[in-house]
Amino acid sequence: MMLKKQFGERIKELRKNKDISQEKFALLINMDRTYYASVESGKRNISLENIKKIANGFNISLEELFRGL
Amino acid sequence: MMLKKQFGERIKELRKNKDISQEKFALLINMDRTYYASVESGKRNISLENIKKIANGFNISLEELFRGL
Repeated sequence: MMLKKQFGERIKELRKNKDISQEKFALLINMDRTYYASVESGKRNISLENIKKIANGFNISLEELFRGL
Repeated sequence: MMLKKQFGERIKELRKNKDISQEKFALLINMDRTYYASVESGKRNISLENIKKIANGFNISLEELFRGL
């Protein structure tokens, strides 16, 4: 699978585990909702700073965010 | 330290361990030399695909690339 797709699946899984909607999670991390949705869909070549925002939203390290990818 | 700076230091350390110049490493991963240098200097909000290129150049996973960050 393409990396962007893999990354999207990973954060979707983490968000589902957190039992929170895309909309609420995007709000929590102060990211545009449609942008966040497109990242989950594997459509975005997301930047380091935005990757970090997402990791912070899950309260995990970048290392843990990329576990298994 | 800022994340971009931390990331730059991390890849610089990995490159030094590999005992290879910026120029040779950039060539190896098919990345513009001056762009790579600016990433090492912590000046770039590098994208996921380029982060992956760098990890591949070191023959490590993204998880390992972000270890300790």
